[in-house]
Formats: sequence, C-alpha cells, structure tokens
Amino acid sequence: MTVKIKVGIIGASGYTGLELLKILIYHPTFELSYVANSTGGVSVDELHPALKSICALDVKKADVDECALSCDLVFLALPHKTSMAYVKPLMKKGIKIVDFSADYRLTQDVYEEYYCEHTDPVNLMNVVYGLPELFREEIKTASLIANPGCYPTSAILGLLPFMDVRIKNTPIIIDAKTGVSGAGKKLSESTNFVNVNDNMFAYKPFTHRHAPEISQKLGIDFDEVNFIPHLVPITRGMLSSIYIQVDKNIDAYNILEEFYKSEASVRVFKEPVNMKNVAGTNFCDIFVKQKGATLFISSAVDNLMRGASSQAVVNANIMMGIRELSGVSDIAYVP
Amino acid sequence: MTVKIKVGIIGASGYTGLELLKILIYHPTFELSYVANSTGGVSVDELHPALKSICALDVKKADVDECALSCDLVFLALPHKTSMAYVKPLMKKGIKIVDFSADYRLTQDVYEEYYCEHTDPVNLMNVVYGLPELFREEIKTASLIANPGCYPTSAILGLLPFMDVRIKNTPIIIDAKTGVSGAGKKLSESTNFVNVNDNMFAYKPFTHRHAPEISQKLGIDFDEVNFIPHLVPITRGMLSSIYIQVDKNIDAYNILEEFYKSEASVRVFKEPVNMKNVAGTNFCDIFVKQKGATLFISSAVDNLMRGASSQAVVNANIMMGIRELSGVSDIAYVP
Amino acid sequence: MTVKIKVGIIGASGYTGLELLKILIYHPTFELSYVANSTGGVSVDELHPALKSICALDVKKADVDECALSCDLVFLALPHKTSMAYVKPLMKKGIKIVDFSADYRLTQDVYEEYYCEHTDPVNLMNVVYGLPELFREEIKTASLIANPGCYPTSAILGLLPFMDVRIKNTPIIIDAKTGVSGAGKKLSESTNFVNVNDNMFAYKPFTHRHAPEISQKLGIDFDEVNFIPHLVPITRGMLSSIYIQVDKNIDAYNILEEFYKSEASVRVFKEPVNMKNVAGTNFCDIFVKQKGATLFISSAVDNLMRGASSQAVVNANIMMGIRELSGVSDIAYVP
Amino acid sequence: MTVKIKVGIIGASGYTGLELLKILIYHPTFELSYVANSTGGVSVDELHPALKSICALDVKKADVDECALSCDLVFLALPHKTSMAYVKPLMKKGIKIVDFSADYRLTQDVYEEYYCEHTDPVNLMNVVYGLPELFREEIKTASLIANPGCYPTSAILGLLPFMDVRIKNTPIIIDAKTGVSGAGKKLSESTNFVNVNDNMFAYKPFTHRHAPEISQKLGIDFDEVNFIPHLVPITRGMLSSIYIQVDKNIDAYNILEEFYKSEASVRVFKEPVNMKNVAGTNFCDIFVKQKGATLFISSAVDNLMRGASSQAVVNANIMMGIRELSGVSDIAYVP
Repeated sequence: MTVKIKVGIIGASGYTGLELLKILIYHPTFELSYVANSTGGVSVDELHPALKSICALDVKKADVDECALSCDLVFLALPHKTSMAYVKPLMKKGIKIVDFSADYRLTQDVYEEYYCEHTDPVNLMNVVYGLPELFREEIKTASLIANPGCYPTSAILGLLPFMDVRIKNTPIIIDAKTGVSGAGKKLSESTNFVNVNDNMFAYKPFTHRHAPEISQKLGIDFDEVNFIPHLVPITRGMLSSIYIQVDKNIDAYNILEEFYKSEASVRVFKEPVNMKNVAGTNFCDIFVKQKGATLFISSAVDNLMRGASSQAVVNANIMMGIRELSGVSDIAYVP
Repeated sequence: MTVKIKVGIIGASGYTGLELLKILIYHPTFELSYVANSTGGVSVDELHPALKSICALDVKKADVDECALSCDLVFLALPHKTSMAYVKPLMKKGIKIVDFSADYRLTQDVYEEYYCEHTDPVNLMNVVYGLPELFREEIKTASLIANPGCYPTSAILGLLPFMDVRIKNTPIIIDAKTGVSGAGKKLSESTNFVNVNDNMFAYKPFTHRHAPEISQKLGIDFDEVNFIPHLVPITRGMLSSIYIQVDKNIDAYNILEEFYKSEASVRVFKEPVNMKNVAGTNFCDIFVKQKGATLFISSAVDNLMRGASSQAVVNANIMMGIRELSGVSDIAYVP
Repeated sequence: MTVKIKVGIIGASGYTGLELLKILIYHPTFELSYVANSTGGVSVDELHPALKSICALDVKKADVDECALSCDLVFLALPHKTSMAYVKPLMKKGIKIVDFSADYRLTQDVYEEYYCEHTDPVNLMNVVYGLPELFREEIKTASLIANPGCYPTSAILGLLPFMDVRIKNTPIIIDAKTGVSGAGKKLSESTNFVNVNDNMFAYKPFTHRHAPEISQKLGIDFDEVNFIPHLVPITRGMLSSIYIQVDKNIDAYNILEEFYKSEASVRVFKEPVNMKNVAGTNFCDIFVKQKGATLFISSAVDNLMRGASSQAVVNANIMMGIRELSGVSDIAYVP
Repeated sequence: MTVKIKVGIIGASGYTGLELLKILIYHPTFELSYVANSTGGVSVDELHPALKSICALDVKKADVDECALSCDLVFLALPHKTSMAYVKPLMKKGIKIVDFSADYRLTQDVYEEYYCEHTDPVNLMNVVYGLPELFREEIKTASLIANPGCYPTSAILGLLPFMDVRIKNTPIIIDAKTGVSGAGKKLSESTNFVNVNDNMFAYKPFTHRHAPEISQKLGIDFDEVNFIPHLVPITRGMLSSIYIQVDKNIDAYNILEEFYKSEASVRVFKEPVNMKNVAGTNFCDIFVKQKGATLFISSAVDNLMRGASSQAVVNANIMMGIRELSGVSDIAYVP
C-alpha cells in the first residue's frame, strides 16, 4: 500500500483555492491534510457549497506551526505580501512550498518597484520559477516554487519557441484577453456582472505587473515588451495574441511543433485556438501564423488551471518525484 | 488484472456524445471499443478538437454488425426514430443498450401521439426507465434502458418525495429553465448567440414532449401536469421550479432529506440551489420551501450529465454490476 | 415658443438614475434643471462616462431647498427610507414627486412589517400608485406618485385582465426571472460576474418584498400570492411566468386583447414574449395560453424602464398634462 | 410644413436592416417609403416582432423599378455581389444610394482578388467612401456611397490622427474584437450560442477581407497591415486594439484630441474605452497610450451602428444636405 504525501492549502477561499481543492480531493498520491484560510471556523463544503457531500474537512485559521506539523508540502494561494510572511517561517521548518503569489517571481529590485518592500530576500535566492517547460530539472530539487502568473504562462509558452528567430530589438506585442475569475473574488465595479456583460475593454495598458514577469523570464529588455490585457465577459479562460517580428523565411508551424513535441501539456493546433478547449485542463493550446516578418501567435490557457492551480499541482508532482500530470485532468469543460 | 467491459457509442457527434466520450475515455472498467456517427471517416479528436492528444480512436459509420462484434453494451446518443432502428437489431444480437432517445420512454399510444409511429413495440415491453432512484433494481437486470429526458429527470426527482403529501387533483406547475445545449447541435435561429444572449423566453408552453414523460413516470393524470420550459442564456444547466399543493402541516425539508438520505447523487440544500454547483456532475440538487399549502421545489441538474450522459453511464454501471458511480465525476465546473 | 417644465433627479448615480438621465436629456417638454446624488461634486458625464459630450450638468449634493427652487417636479431614484426623508419636506414646498422607492407603495402596517418604521404617514394618504393602466385618472391630479416596483409592474399587468375569470381562493404562482441590474449598483457576491454567468437560481422564495405590493394592488389575500423571483445572467429584462386557475371556458387571448386594446404601452402577442423586444422601452409584452383550468401568462418588461424610469417619466407626463408617452422610446435594444 | 425626403431600404431582414428601420421610422426628415427584402410578403413588424405596434409597413420583394418610383435615396443592406446588381440599374434611374456591401469599397483589382468579378466597374469611378471624417466634402455631392465596413471604421478612425507621426515601414498591428452580430443573421456553427458563450478565438488571421479595405483607405502598403479579428461573446460592439511605431517624442493624447476636436461623432477618452458606452450610438470612442516608440490605440464602435447603419444614415444626411446627425441617437445602451 502506497504511503500518501501530505499536502496543505493556505488560502482555500479564493477561486484558485477552490480549484486546488477540486484537484487535491481526488489526487491519487497527495493526501489533503491541512486546509486553511484567514479566519477558519468553517468546513470546506460550507466555504464552497459545490463540494457538499464530497469534502467536509475543517478549514482552519492559517497557522505556520500547525501547517508544518500536518504537511510535507503546502500550496500558498495567497495575495502578494501576505504570501512571503508565510514562506519565510515555513521554509525554516523544511516544508516544501508552491507559492501562487508574485512574491518570489521577480528579482528584488523589480519586485519592489512593482509591488512593495520584500521582507524575505534570502529565499529569493533559492526559488525556482514553476514553468515546467522551462525549468523542469530545477523544479525537481526545489524547496520553493514561484508558481507563474496566468498571463506570463500563456505569453511565455507562446513566445519561447520563437526567441531564436525573433529579430532583436523589435517590439513584442502581447494583446491578452482574460476571463473575470482572473481578478479574484474581491468585489469591485469592474467585476460586477452589469459592467462586464456585453462589454470589453483594455486595462492597465503597458503597466500591468505581469509585464516585468514576462520580460524577466524571457530575458528580454523590458522596453521591448508591450503588454496590454483586456477583460472579456467570460468566467475562466485566457487568450494571448502575440505579435513579433521574425526572419521571413522560417517555417513557424514546424518550429512550434518541434519545440513542444515532447511536452504533454502543450498542444499545437493548425486552426486558431480557443478558450473552451483548455477550460478545466492544464493544457496550453498554441496556434501560429506568419505574414511576412510578422508572426501571430495565439496561446490559450485556463487562467485558473494552467494559469494557477493545475500548474501548481504539476509543480508539486515534479518536486515530489511522482508522475508529472498525476491528479490533473485533461478533459475540458466543453461544450 | 481486471478484464474490461467493452462499450460503444453510436451518435458521437452531438453534445451528449461528447460528454459520453469525456466520461468513457477514463472509465476504470469500461473500455471504449466502438465509436460511430452517421458518416464515419474521422477520428474522435477531429470530431471534438478538445480531445486532441487524448483520444484518436476512429469514428466509424454506424453499423449494427460491427457494433455487435465490438461491444457488450452500447450507448445510443441518437434522435428519436433513428434510435429504434438500431435498438431492434442490436437487441436481437444480445447487446445491452442505453438509449438516449425518447423512443422507449413512453407507452406506445402516447409515444405515437407525440412523436411518430413506433416500429419496435416488442422491445417497449422489455425496457426499463433509467432513473436509478426509481428503478434501481429493475435496471440491474435490464437489457434495454430508456435513459430519461433532462426535464423529466429534474422534475421527477423534485416531485417524487412529495407525491404522498400532495393534494389529489390539484395542478402541478413545472416552470423549467434550460441552457442552450439542451437543444442539441442542430443550428436554428433560437440557438443563435444573438437571439439567446440577454434574452429569455418560454417555448412550447404546455405542449413540450417531455410533459407526458413526466406524467407517465409519476403516474399522474396528464391533465394535472403543466410544464412550461424556458430557454436561458447559459450553455449547460437546468433548473426546474415546481409548485404543488400539499397538506399544510408537513415538514417539507424533513421529508425531502429523509427520502434521499441514501442516495449519493441527490443533494438536499437549505438554500436555493443553482446551476453551477451541478455543472459537470451527476448530482441533482434540491431545495424546498413551503407557504401554506403551496410547496416550491427547486431542482437543479446538468442537462448534459444527469440529464443525459452521466446518468447513462450510471445506468450502464448498474446493468454491468459495477460500482454505480464508477467513472462519473462529482466535481463541479465551478467557479 | 413652449415654456419647458423644470424637472430634477435626486439619486442620479444608480442604474435607474442613469436611465432617467438618458430619457430626460432629450425630453421635448421637460428641462433637466437639477441633478443630485448623495455627495455631489461631479458632472453628469463624469458620473456616467457614456454621456460624455452629451450632458455635462453639475451633479449637486442633494438638498431639499435647492431642489425646490430649481424644479416643478422631481424624480427620487433613492432607496427606501432615504426617500421618505425627502418626500416629506418636498411635499411641503409644493413640489410634485415621482418616488422610485417602496416607501409609499404599501399601507403603513404592511410597509412597517416588510421594511421599517414609516416616518411620513401623512403623505401615505395622498399618494397614487403610478401604474397608468390602473390609476391613470388619479395620476392626473396627484402630487405624489409611488412608482411601482419592477416585479409588481410585470405581474400586475399580466394578472389584471384575468382577475374576473380567476377561480377564487386558488393559488397564484408568479415565477419571475430578472436581469442583474434589478439588484442595483451595490456590489455583492450575488451580482459578481463569476457567480452570475452560466448560473441561475431562485432567491427570497415567498418572502421577497414585492409580494405584498402585488397582493395589495390586486386586492388579493396575501396567502394566495406565491412569488418566487430568480436571477438570470442578463443585464436588463424581466419575465414573469404567472400561473392561475380560471374558468375552463374562457377565451384567454381574446380577454387579454380586449383588455389592453386602448393601451399604447402594452402589447399582446400570439407567440411567447421575450426580454429583448422590450429592452429599452416602456412596453409590457404579454402572452397567454390555457390548458384546462390552468392559465399561463408570460409578461415581459425592461426592469429599468417599464419597471422603473420610463414608467416614472410616463407618470410625470400624465401629472403635468402633456402627451403620456412624451420622451419615452418605443424602439427596443434589438438585436 | 417641411416636405420629407423619401428613402427606402433593400435588405430589411438582416441585423443592419433592422437597425436602419429603428433609425428611419422616427427620422425627422426622411420618410420611409419603400422597404424590401428578397422575398416580400410580410410586414415590418412580422419580420421584426420588436417593432410591433410601431411599424406595419409592407415589406416588398425587392424591385428596382418600384424602388426608383418610391424613393429619392435607398439604403442597400445587402451582401456583396447581390448589391452591385442593384446599384447599376438604380444609378441609371438617378436614385442616390448608400451601399452597405463591400462592392464599391475597393479598387477593382483588389476587389476581384478578395471577392469576385466586378460587374459594375463604371460606378466604381463615381463612388465615395462614406467615412465622414475622411470624405465629408465628397459625400455632400456623391450619388453613390460605399458605406465602410465595421472593422475598417474602427481601425481607420483610430489610426488616422497618427499617420503623420508613424515610423514608415514598420508593421501596423490591428488586434480587433467583435460581437457576434457582425457575422450577420446566417446560421453557422461559429455563431451558435454554445460555441460562442464562454469562448473567444481569432479567425481569418491576416486574411480577413477588411484588411485590404483598411490598407487602401489609409494609403498604406498592404504588407504593413496585420489585421487579426477575434470573436467575443457579445451581441454588438467592436474594439480595435491597434499597435504602431511612432516618434518617441510625440504627445499622443494631444494629437488625438486636436485631430478630432471638431468631430461630433468621435470622443477622446483619458481612460481605456469600452464597448458599452458606444452601443446603440454613432460614436467612435478612442483612447491612446504610448510606451517608448510603441503606441497603443484603443478604438470602440458599435459594429451595427457606427460600423453600419447609423453611419449610413449620417452619410445620407450629408448627401441630402440636412443636419449630419439627424435621426441618429447618441444615447448608449447602458448599463
């Protein structure tokens, strides 16, 4: 009989916390041993009525010591700043961590420019950026994973295969479209149904915090990354339309297919990709088309799954030496 | 090592065919051995690009002999009339069948009044109506299952616990709301995005073909069943708001909870139920509230799952003597 | 040259305030002379960017004296309780009022049971309920109009023609569906896009505050009114599905058509009505169908227009002796 | 008493035909004297039930002679190819025409490359492209107007102010998003609710027929125009996100504001524009932001109004020498 690996969630209330629960409840090797949010005092199915009759575990008030006693690995589905306050003590206690926040994704200087003062620079030295297609080997031995942002995941996976054929010093345009769940559960005018339904708009053009994350991980000068996110009236899903300048003579489709031929969580399509085919899965679906020197790359992910929770579980699987896609569904929410 | 049971699908192109594929691809005991539609000549992932890299089985042109050679049990996800043309020869060959159409749900006279001439009255004698909460024992030994309609499933499960306390000869009002996938894949003005988005309307008031199905299975005089379906701008989901007259002194919640206390696929809620919590699952969620003699019952199912494909798989599981909910997900498509 | 009638709005920030602005800006006889909300300090187009380049009037901090000096008639698009605090002093100053709140719609005892203590019982004596089809003559000479609630408008207009043929002491079922704008602009979980999109549910079954309003205005015992509202993923629109018991021998369509043959803002349809055809207009569209003694009435309004702002302007038109539908559009937001 | 100008519509069945009807029914100077589609035999309100009790004009089977006898000006809301078959004889009869199709928007060679053989090259010589901000003077004396496509309208209006500061020979990226009504009324899988809801995808990347229209009207080499349209789950609305390379030292906002300071139908915003604020109006709302040499221009129109029917009426107003915005609403379909 297999001994299960004990895992925990701190931050079980939000959308990504719910997605984590949905995956971990039936994970074949992980045992959900600790579930916490900022207040505690409820059960999982009270917090998320969709899980009624499925999971009635207690949701505890988050506590470092209790977490450390209960888990081998913990997922921190927390906002930035809150997260590093947990990472620091949990790392000391030897707990492996997959952190959903931005706290360990950037170099300290850029982080402090875009977010706030960093209170745990030591662990910034040890973190691995949890994009398996880029850092699979490093993830295997990591104790702390910075789980990528949703926009960076879709943008980087779309751009990676073409970094070599890109014409240097030309602008990269990332026109991204995201569903509303990406904004999290906090109430705001811009996520109110009446404002979103039948509507669409850009927000934070050029200044969104995911832009420096894309730039740093791809090793491109920030000046060359032009990131414009848009909100669309969709619950989950993200589509990044990427435009770069490349050598006119490449076979873009072939480059893309070759690049990902061994990757189980990236699919290459000959028709434009869409959000539905990836909803509920860890897939990143990619389409590419060229016109002269301009390359159009369309990259689709589920912002809550490949852009957050399923990617986090994949990272944990790799860290723990089990099958990479263990517990993660590849059956989309279609039709 | 367990020997798998070979199952097939005829009618793999539609929404319910896709849902069947999504369940059966990873079913622990069933092996998908035959997939067919009316034309053949494609693979599963060409037919449903969401299944790319997951299932590349050939989709055959439907053929009774080939099906019978390949399967122990077959799911017929076909429209009425087409279905009975397959049931008749497949039954002769001893194949077990779960039929999605209306062809075997009604008595011959009522069927012919609402649909068309019945060409297989013999098998009408042997069929079992596949609502496990009503006919679990009969399903165990059945060769032919008439899988219930989506509206009847939600309405009957809502009404069943209260049939004894209902005041005889009073009208039953079933005001049902369904997502657009219930109309199937056939193109029509009423399923065009522009006509559905931001819109809602009743259709076929009193005359929808699911009304006699509800009436016959509950053993109520058709005159007493008032069934009014509405189309809502939602892809999947069904909510039946049911109003009946009952003894004023009952404890409706208690009756409901008692009735379903041993049923794993019905959940009783103390707050009004919604469509999201059941999307992607086999659950029927039910809420009840009384005001004087009027009882309001709110019953939610996923029209493609509990209202079609997951219920079909549950029926097949029972027929084959395996765990009733084998292969069927209880994790909803939330948020 | 016609002298214009000066009108004001207190409560310009909400959805109904915006609809009022949209109508009054181009009203041929009314001149928008006073616009206020609870804070002031902005212009109309800052408050509602859609009105940029159309209306840059100052939005004042609401003040009774300033309002009385500026207007002959004022629309109070305010929540209950807040509203009566303005009605009392404005009535003293002789300003005509159309009040959007529930404060003057009910008898004092029922109001206090459902809302809060009533601080202006005197004016409760003088108010007219602003449903023109019921009280057109009284509205002509009224100083204070209680503008009907959205649900009561659609329910009462649907029920009115059939009150004479209804079988006494049988239950009235009103299964109503509303778009999200009916909940107002206040942020809440239940109006967040993620919770509404692809979802539907009943809320406040039997206990919604519009139930006694329907009961009182129709003169029916409250015990006989069963009102169940549902939220649907639509911005604006309301569909009331009403079920009553009637004499089997009536010609329901004929009764309906006769009843409204002189009413310009009610349309009778031979096919089920929908929300889109009334969006943006003052129409109430009604369909009726009978099965035995059960009558199904389907009544559609735009909750923000016929259910609030356009009906308010119609009331003001009647009060001021000008053309009843002056300024009010009958061109729907289709497709 | 003013003599009204008689106008007609050929192609009254589609979405743009409906929008034309909605405008022309109440146009203060135009009298709707002829309404036709391909079959005739119905009335306007039977064709568009939303217009019940508003317009019961006969819809005729389209006929050149009858049209010419009835109208001074006709709107052709027809598909390409069909349209030129009407333009040729109607021009001979001296009827003024606003043509919605692509038939007269392009030079003959490019038209024939993208569409089909051109059967009326003579009138290609006389046509004026109906974008008032570009060709107002020419429209005044034109007999035949090619009403611009929806995508070209939003793209050209966004790009125009910056053509002088654009760095030559750099790529123009137009990442456009459109609501589903842009696809017209014809049924197709890609406009079925189930495929559109919760989904988004690019279509016809680089090859959409509106790309050469944008290129020709702006006088840019086709190689430099990269046009990628996307379908979004919205009924009406279009948002073009445009990326160009410009001189780093410009003040983009100031250029934009100056350029359109005298244009009543273009609004310049300091915050990103959205689809809702223009829905139902003739406005084009534009926002601009610069990062280094990359300029992001966001341009929003209602695809059925500024992108079709209201722009057509504006063109007709100019041709007939009446007030440019006569009959055209500037009040948006918000909230």
